[in-house]
Amino acid sequence: MADTKANPDVKRGRPRQLSVRDAVLAGAGQLLLQAGIKGFSIEGVARLSGASKVTIYKWWPSKGALALDGFYTLVSPSIDTTLTGDVKQDLVTQVSAVLALFRDTAIGPILAGLIGEAQRDPELAAAIRERWLEPRRRCGVAILEAAQAAGHVRPDLDPTMVLDQIYGPIYLRLLVGHAPLTDDLAATLVRTILSGILASDASERQA
Amino acid sequence: MADTKANPDVKRGRPRQLSVRDAVLAGAGQLLLQAGIKGFSIEGVARLSGASKVTIYKWWPSKGALALDGFYTLVSPSIDTTLTGDVKQDLVTQVSAVLALFRDTAIGPILAGLIGEAQRDPELAAAIRERWLEPRRRCGVAILEAAQAAGHVRPDLDPTMVLDQIYGPIYLRLLVGHAPLTDDLAATLVRTILSGILASDASERQA
Repeated sequence: MADTKANPDVKRGRPRQLSVRDAVLAGAGQLLLQAGIKGFSIEGVARLSGASKVTIYKWWPSKGALALDGFYTLVSPSIDTTLTGDVKQDLVTQVSAVLALFRDTAIGPILAGLIGEAQRDPELAAAIRERWLEPRRRCGVAILEAAQAAGHVRPDLDPTMVLDQIYGPIYLRLLVGHAPLTDDLAATLVRTILSGILASDASERQA
Repeated sequence: MADTKANPDVKRGRPRQLSVRDAVLAGAGQLLLQAGIKGFSIEGVARLSGASKVTIYKWWPSKGALALDGFYTLVSPSIDTTLTGDVKQDLVTQVSAVLALFRDTAIGPILAGLIGEAQRDPELAAAIRERWLEPRRRCGVAILEAAQAAGHVRPDLDPTMVLDQIYGPIYLRLLVGHAPLTDDLAATLVRTILSGILASDASERQA
């Protein structure tokens, strides 16, 4: 019944359709885990879920849309983090959680595959922005805005730009693989963006 | 004749094969400009260049390898920048050049397509690292190492990590499109990484 609230398009009193929908989502998540986006297809999800392709196309206009919803059945439990009000600690906690998700679970390669596929599929690209990146950023923006309000972080900075300078390296490494996602990466990225790279005596000259 | 040096596998005295090879490369670059990686195929390059598919496969093992070489016929002229020794100015100059390339030419979308395709093609991913990312990074690493040697930048920092925090946001925006590549982006990214985001009185407490 929880799904009725999450999905207002589904009419009441049709539990059978709800469960088919859940089976399709579970099948989509399962197929992503097994085969990644490379081996993902509407046919495969139909086979795993027992739903017909016609039924699947009724709810999901494209393979990309179904893949992103399947992705969410895998990743949704781990979005929240508890904030302490210490900007450094809160950023490190949040970044560490994303790093662990990307490195220690199948989520990293699956998301990389989705972003790759999005280069060919503008609807998937929009869905990744609206359903993955933006909701995840709200927590980071909240941390930085609170730190700005408290006078700890410079007020002239755009928090989304700061988040790009913390998370951009992680996505770049995930997508291009030129350097590993190491244990110390979260602390290093946050420390560098907080304090900058200038030597302390050079700071005063160049800042 | 310049190509003989760049391609030591080609034997001397066979100018006809050299010119077929050049025609294939030119055709690959042209097809990328016309159709992006999505519309890129060995067949299409054969058609544009007049070379046979057998000939093309003799030199390029895969579509991805040919696409990357074709990409280089489009982008190679614009790698070098002149350095002044001022870390801020040199980084802004270099980042601005990359931003202009990504935003004002077809290179940005083509590179995004190649990185997308690389999620399905590990050989293309390796080629992007070895032939695009690493050579481009050498100049940025040189700027930062010189600044460290001169005492302007903290000596404990890994220059490649710093470059990730400057270029990561640009690649993330190119690939995910959540924010634009604006005119002021180069200066903002460099300024933030040089000086950090902490308010000056908070710096001393938290650094």
